[in-house]
Amino acid sequence: MTAAAHRSEHDLLGDRDVPAEAYWGIHTLRATENFPITGTPISAYPHLIDALAAVKEAAARANEELGLLAPEKAAAIVEACREIRDGKLHDQFVVDVIQGGAGTSTNMNANEVVANRALELLGHAKGEYQHLHPNEDVNLGQSTNDVYPTAVKIATVFAVRGLLKAMAVLQDAFARKAVEFRDVLKMGRTQLQDAVPMTLGQEFSAYAVMLDEDRSRLAEAVELIHEINLGATAIGTGLNAPAGYAESARRHLAEITGLPLVTAANLVEATQDCGAFVQMSGVLKRIAVKLSKSCNDLRLLSSGPRAGLNEINLPPVQAGSSIMPGKVNPVIPEVVNQVAFEVIGNDVAITMAAEAGQLQLNAFEPIILHSLSESITHLRAACLTLAERCVEGITANTDVLRASVENSIGLVTALNPHIGYTAATAIAQEALTTGRGVAELVLEKGLLPADRLAALLSPERVAGAGAGAGADVPLPG
Amino acid sequence: MTAAAHRSEHDLLGDRDVPAEAYWGIHTLRATENFPITGTPISAYPHLIDALAAVKEAAARANEELGLLAPEKAAAIVEACREIRDGKLHDQFVVDVIQGGAGTSTNMNANEVVANRALELLGHAKGEYQHLHPNEDVNLGQSTNDVYPTAVKIATVFAVRGLLKAMAVLQDAFARKAVEFRDVLKMGRTQLQDAVPMTLGQEFSAYAVMLDEDRSRLAEAVELIHEINLGATAIGTGLNAPAGYAESARRHLAEITGLPLVTAANLVEATQDCGAFVQMSGVLKRIAVKLSKSCNDLRLLSSGPRAGLNEINLPPVQAGSSIMPGKVNPVIPEVVNQVAFEVIGNDVAITMAAEAGQLQLNAFEPIILHSLSESITHLRAACLTLAERCVEGITANTDVLRASVENSIGLVTALNPHIGYTAATAIAQEALTTGRGVAELVLEKGLLPADRLAALLSPERVAGAGAGAGADVPLPG
Amino acid sequence: MTAAAHRSEHDLLGDRDVPAEAYWGIHTLRATENFPITGTPISAYPHLIDALAAVKEAAARANEELGLLAPEKAAAIVEACREIRDGKLHDQFVVDVIQGGAGTSTNMNANEVVANRALELLGHAKGEYQHLHPNEDVNLGQSTNDVYPTAVKIATVFAVRGLLKAMAVLQDAFARKAVEFRDVLKMGRTQLQDAVPMTLGQEFSAYAVMLDEDRSRLAEAVELIHEINLGATAIGTGLNAPAGYAESARRHLAEITGLPLVTAANLVEATQDCGAFVQMSGVLKRIAVKLSKSCNDLRLLSSGPRAGLNEINLPPVQAGSSIMPGKVNPVIPEVVNQVAFEVIGNDVAITMAAEAGQLQLNAFEPIILHSLSESITHLRAACLTLAERCVEGITANTDVLRASVENSIGLVTALNPHIGYTAATAIAQEALTTGRGVAELVLEKGLLPADRLAALLSPERVAGAGAGAGADVPLPG
Amino acid sequence: MTAAAHRSEHDLLGDRDVPAEAYWGIHTLRATENFPITGTPISAYPHLIDALAAVKEAAARANEELGLLAPEKAAAIVEACREIRDGKLHDQFVVDVIQGGAGTSTNMNANEVVANRALELLGHAKGEYQHLHPNEDVNLGQSTNDVYPTAVKIATVFAVRGLLKAMAVLQDAFARKAVEFRDVLKMGRTQLQDAVPMTLGQEFSAYAVMLDEDRSRLAEAVELIHEINLGATAIGTGLNAPAGYAESARRHLAEITGLPLVTAANLVEATQDCGAFVQMSGVLKRIAVKLSKSCNDLRLLSSGPRAGLNEINLPPVQAGSSIMPGKVNPVIPEVVNQVAFEVIGNDVAITMAAEAGQLQLNAFEPIILHSLSESITHLRAACLTLAERCVEGITANTDVLRASVENSIGLVTALNPHIGYTAATAIAQEALTTGRGVAELVLEKGLLPADRLAALLSPERVAGAGAGAGADVPLPG
Repeated sequence: MTAAAHRSEHDLLGDRDVPAEAYWGIHTLRATENFPITGTPISAYPHLIDALAAVKEAAARANEELGLLAPEKAAAIVEACREIRDGKLHDQFVVDVIQGGAGTSTNMNANEVVANRALELLGHAKGEYQHLHPNEDVNLGQSTNDVYPTAVKIATVFAVRGLLKAMAVLQDAFARKAVEFRDVLKMGRTQLQDAVPMTLGQEFSAYAVMLDEDRSRLAEAVELIHEINLGATAIGTGLNAPAGYAESARRHLAEITGLPLVTAANLVEATQDCGAFVQMSGVLKRIAVKLSKSCNDLRLLSSGPRAGLNEINLPPVQAGSSIMPGKVNPVIPEVVNQVAFEVIGNDVAITMAAEAGQLQLNAFEPIILHSLSESITHLRAACLTLAERCVEGITANTDVLRASVENSIGLVTALNPHIGYTAATAIAQEALTTGRGVAELVLEKGLLPADRLAALLSPERVAGAGAGAGADVPLPG
Repeated sequence: MTAAAHRSEHDLLGDRDVPAEAYWGIHTLRATENFPITGTPISAYPHLIDALAAVKEAAARANEELGLLAPEKAAAIVEACREIRDGKLHDQFVVDVIQGGAGTSTNMNANEVVANRALELLGHAKGEYQHLHPNEDVNLGQSTNDVYPTAVKIATVFAVRGLLKAMAVLQDAFARKAVEFRDVLKMGRTQLQDAVPMTLGQEFSAYAVMLDEDRSRLAEAVELIHEINLGATAIGTGLNAPAGYAESARRHLAEITGLPLVTAANLVEATQDCGAFVQMSGVLKRIAVKLSKSCNDLRLLSSGPRAGLNEINLPPVQAGSSIMPGKVNPVIPEVVNQVAFEVIGNDVAITMAAEAGQLQLNAFEPIILHSLSESITHLRAACLTLAERCVEGITANTDVLRASVENSIGLVTALNPHIGYTAATAIAQEALTTGRGVAELVLEKGLLPADRLAALLSPERVAGAGAGAGADVPLPG
Repeated sequence: MTAAAHRSEHDLLGDRDVPAEAYWGIHTLRATENFPITGTPISAYPHLIDALAAVKEAAARANEELGLLAPEKAAAIVEACREIRDGKLHDQFVVDVIQGGAGTSTNMNANEVVANRALELLGHAKGEYQHLHPNEDVNLGQSTNDVYPTAVKIATVFAVRGLLKAMAVLQDAFARKAVEFRDVLKMGRTQLQDAVPMTLGQEFSAYAVMLDEDRSRLAEAVELIHEINLGATAIGTGLNAPAGYAESARRHLAEITGLPLVTAANLVEATQDCGAFVQMSGVLKRIAVKLSKSCNDLRLLSSGPRAGLNEINLPPVQAGSSIMPGKVNPVIPEVVNQVAFEVIGNDVAITMAAEAGQLQLNAFEPIILHSLSESITHLRAACLTLAERCVEGITANTDVLRASVENSIGLVTALNPHIGYTAATAIAQEALTTGRGVAELVLEKGLLPADRLAALLSPERVAGAGAGAGADVPLPG
Repeated sequence: MTAAAHRSEHDLLGDRDVPAEAYWGIHTLRATENFPITGTPISAYPHLIDALAAVKEAAARANEELGLLAPEKAAAIVEACREIRDGKLHDQFVVDVIQGGAGTSTNMNANEVVANRALELLGHAKGEYQHLHPNEDVNLGQSTNDVYPTAVKIATVFAVRGLLKAMAVLQDAFARKAVEFRDVLKMGRTQLQDAVPMTLGQEFSAYAVMLDEDRSRLAEAVELIHEINLGATAIGTGLNAPAGYAESARRHLAEITGLPLVTAANLVEATQDCGAFVQMSGVLKRIAVKLSKSCNDLRLLSSGPRAGLNEINLPPVQAGSSIMPGKVNPVIPEVVNQVAFEVIGNDVAITMAAEAGQLQLNAFEPIILHSLSESITHLRAACLTLAERCVEGITANTDVLRASVENSIGLVTALNPHIGYTAATAIAQEALTTGRGVAELVLEKGLLPADRLAALLSPERVAGAGAGAGADVPLPG
């Protein structure tokens, strides 16, 4: 080991060599050794890295404003943070996504990277902390316990924005199909049994409406995430943070991120509370449940081609089987189902982590961040691939669908007011016995003229004027 | 079996004898035989029974208004429903809380009880359905698929109101303790390690704030439950419900219940969707998580009396041990923890049931209702018993708490700006080596006069003026 | 309040009046006031009441044997316990199923009921504890912390036996159908897409095999439950239990229950450990998963009748709809699905409760008992109703099933080796284009004689001789 | 795009360019486009890649043996597979860990990599499938539906072996501490309240015993994973797999892997069943629950240093706080807790995926594999870091521990038989009133001579001879 290759750093446990080119330092080094869990570094969450840099910049600006940090130090820190938010140095965020210490290692990693880059900008070598110190300068007036949750919240807000957009894309895809299939008559089913007629457009409209409602819920949940505890320091009493610091830091952070951040009214509560994350995960779970249900339906409706419902066709995106030539499988809905299962599982992990908080802090926010990030980014990917590689290409087997109505026994329910209960019952009976279609029998027996029957089976009539179920397909703005 | 003891009823599967005195009929009888699962009848949910009666009354009024139901029939149905809402006939709701059929058996049970009571009011015998029929009259214009979810929602709204009140009682109990303990100094802890000073009042204030926030979330979630699908009939197309029916029924139902009910814009979506229930359960889970965390804290803070933290005393409510005389256990927080675990488990059951919906209906709403009801009523009981049998009687061991601050090493952090970093480090070192207290050493070495030290350790100072953490204890209005 | 109506009892918190006729005493009274959670008393679990009586009897016998308890007291206790195991006095077990205190209230309830009944048998009045004391005599040498888990385990063993029998009944029902449908050809499906031919018998055989495997897993899990910690007293050190007590009590308990009970090798570990319950719940969850999957299949295969797969018919057990006459729904599989969701949710509750144990005890065994009991008894009921009200009456639509094979494109895969790849591809192409059946085209083109084709489509051939999948339907002994 | 840089491949959807140097082909290409979910390729699971190669090699050998595959083709396939199992070409396994299609893309990826490497070995260029084809040669006699589950099972067996070893390391660390702390007296606690004395050795022994039991359960669960369905092909009927193939392939696979693999008796059931994975995940969850409980205890026992229990010291492994100098946190137990929460969440995801299987296949095995792999590898890492960076360095604060016994009120319970109930009660009363210690008072009042008291408080006596709790610390062989 040559002197050039490493530099020596010191902490309360002693001295350690750090690679000379590393922007991270001894605290980060120890953390990588202590938490060899997943092999995935926190740089896997670029929103988090950007958010950490934003918090460090805001704190530096506030500290300068309050006269606690020399302007040249503040300027160097601010510049280093901006580089990070420009996408530089992300590879220096190397601690594991699953870590003990309530996020301390993530905060320390950020302090060290910012300090060493700032040192360089000031013309010093990395590690010359006598000129600018990771803890005393970069972390000035802060604690992991306010920096980390604040950064996690900002990262979550930006990640959720991506998800909201992807959901809008998917909603739009469903809504376009709802319009396209507006006049396609089919049998509605309850409990998998033939029920009464509807249109295929109504079926797809329901998926669009679900997404529209879910987007509203998600937008509400993300509102709660804008409440931060920066300035709380260790436990919410603001110890060692001077008067005015919390408000100044919040103001700068809001400006940097463009987010309408507010400081929690009770910082002791805010520092220990994970309620907003639990709420967010609950809404993500809700979205997962609905997406999975919609995908179950798509797989069911496209089952066959011969021994299934065969009502719609999903676009083939890859060969389905090596052994069964020509088989095409609903692989896109299937991958969405699996993301949904993952999100639902993550919700349980988040729930347990939130419940395990003790007294003034929840030490388990790293797994909350990890699980939330996974849920949000995977749901986003799932929505996009479902929209682009599946929903947009769906076609309807119009003849199959119409025949299912005309052959159904359930059609009797709709004709009941028009041919009378006694005739209806007799027709149903005959249809069941002979296997023939109700429409066919009604015509054969002269119970209704063909044009009258056709009118009763018109999509407008079937869709139900009063129910308002056909026209209100929401197209995201 | 004598003729007097039974009456014969008929359905599509054939004839069956029903006890003569039963208000329920053949459909209910078959359901009790088909679903011998829990032994708990739906009458265990009085809010649901009342809600079913409200829906049936509203439908009868709407049907009369539209000229579909003879006034005398409508009047008898309305009167029967009012009796039920007055608490009568609840014992006639006998189908199991866990049942197949998407709630059909619950709806049929209601139709039969209302019909038979209405028949009596009209001077007929039970079972003389030629005069007033469970399906053709009581269920007129309805389907299980709109009646059942509507009733479940109304029942949930009323149950949640009870929970909200119980949460307010608990919040109030915590808030009063926050005031009472406003001047009690103690060590705050992060990751179970001594951190920095705070007041016991701040600790209890945090629990009150958590409940306040949770009440807000719950109030938001219950808003979503006011959207109903009455008039949707089987799948949301409104088949067999005449124009104007949905709006008329909604108006009557809103009047009967006093709730600002709205009809869903897209009834096809609303009929298959369980999103509002998933959202509600997610919020109940959030409440459970927070309550459990608070109870974990109470158990930790009252641990001892000798070999534990011994900071607070929970009021003894029963002997703790047959073998260890005088032992008193934190049984009330423990029972609340268990309710929380149950609620979290129920959320998984609700999630799976919601995900399992298929096409135009979710057939699994009965387990959703069952799990939601359990969660809401048990949480309500848990909040009340926690408030009345535990929190209200909590006392503080003020001397123990103050000594923990004076003896703490963490105190150095607070004194750092006042005695200087070098002296602080030396004091910390000596305290660690000798086991003596930091306050004691500071005084002994003349680093601070006694009155100055006392001022620095005053509750106002420790609580953190800027953090606003002391004064904002929310007392529910 | 007259003297005759009540008796006064005393504990460390003071005096309370207890109804004169009550066999329970002051500890039970306080517990009912402290835990007003579910309204369901522990008598809802008769196996638990019997098990508590068995433990109390075994302890009395052991105490007598060791000379610690006078023979006449022991005899009275033994007699009281036997009465309880004969089904008497169960209504005296009134504490709530969800309770704090690690089961102390359940144990105290048992001590009081046994003591008061024993007092009567000795000619004393209830409450005259100077003659025979709930704690000093009935609970002699015991602690809640060994009595309660031991009783829970014994209760669980007996409950699981009931479940094992019910699973065997269901397995048998599936197996009989597998034999009945041995020659019914159908299309197998993967990912809901037509795959290759199989027999309906094979499909039902798989359900029977699943149950057979699950019974094996359940039998293994219940083995672990036979390890008890009686004699551990408070924390496993056996404090206050004399030498020989643990072994004597175990021997008597094994004799009373007929179970091959063993004492844990490490009682400290055994007293705090809930591993066997977590394992048991995990296996119950596995059973739930499989049952739910099987029921999903039954609902899918019976979907229709016209717009569904319509391969099998479930026996109608109740009318399906008030609005759609003649509709029959798969209500029995649906109720089983819901029980499965409940069991899966209960597993999460049990998991959280087990994880929450601290140091020498898990205080949350009451919710573990509650959730386990619910899962076991509801699964048992679900298996029986599924066997008796659904599976036994299933019929096959043989023509529909056979046509699905003959019309399938997938049939080409099976004919490939016999008609050659080129011809097979051409046939598949033509079938796809024209909508005609593969079998029909093969015959028309003379590619195979009819008898050869029939042979290739024989159930024996399709079922796959080498796979051993047809003959090994397990019929439970 | 030059000809050199790409080659063109064809499938049923058309032609696509594949990078010339890629060993994967068109099927893999499409899959990477279809499933852009996690960004993590399946090469993240090296055990899976090795297992796939083992299956492909076994199939090639069996096919050669049965005369279905030319020896030179078989030899090339075998050689390519061995290279993969030697760690080569893993970077060619690029499809996403979360994917639709029931594992088809993973199987196709393997077929293509093996084929292209085999082509090279035979002197051909990649993509010249006319000489050796991914499907027709490498996948000969196979289906994704038997290859994939078989490979997942083999991968799981090897991963679990790693976990079993790590658990043994941790058990050993706890057991050594149990020996080291054998004579350290302390107070045992139930419900966080002081109970009766024990030794610290007993406390650590319990953790060792838990791991010992969990290893047994895990070893049992992994047994079930040795049952494979190779030879089942698409749905278990063995279609297109010749007589003798299943047995020959199993024999070769057992030889290659060194595992005692058995072929399932009922291949139709085995092909659709995920029971063994659910069982495995249930056991992993059990392990997680216990580990988390043990870590909760370690964090509790090491709480302080002044305002906590302060019974043991965890070795400091990194600085705990930037704001509170000298604070050292229990970061290693905390990271283990979080892995436990993740494993418990994964169990829910696996449960849902298993429940979602339909008819002859479960299409969701990829998420099962993903979640299982994560759980196993993270638990392994957690056990090792807990053993090496925490448990091995734990020290006891012997004086604090002994004082907690001597000062405890609970000590009276132990002295009761020796000083009499009346004296014991008086002592307890005085201790409570004065805050003095029971031991001190007993000596002062001359109730016991000092040596007698010391004997009663000897570790051997306290540990409980009869309970067998001291000597049986299991050291893994």
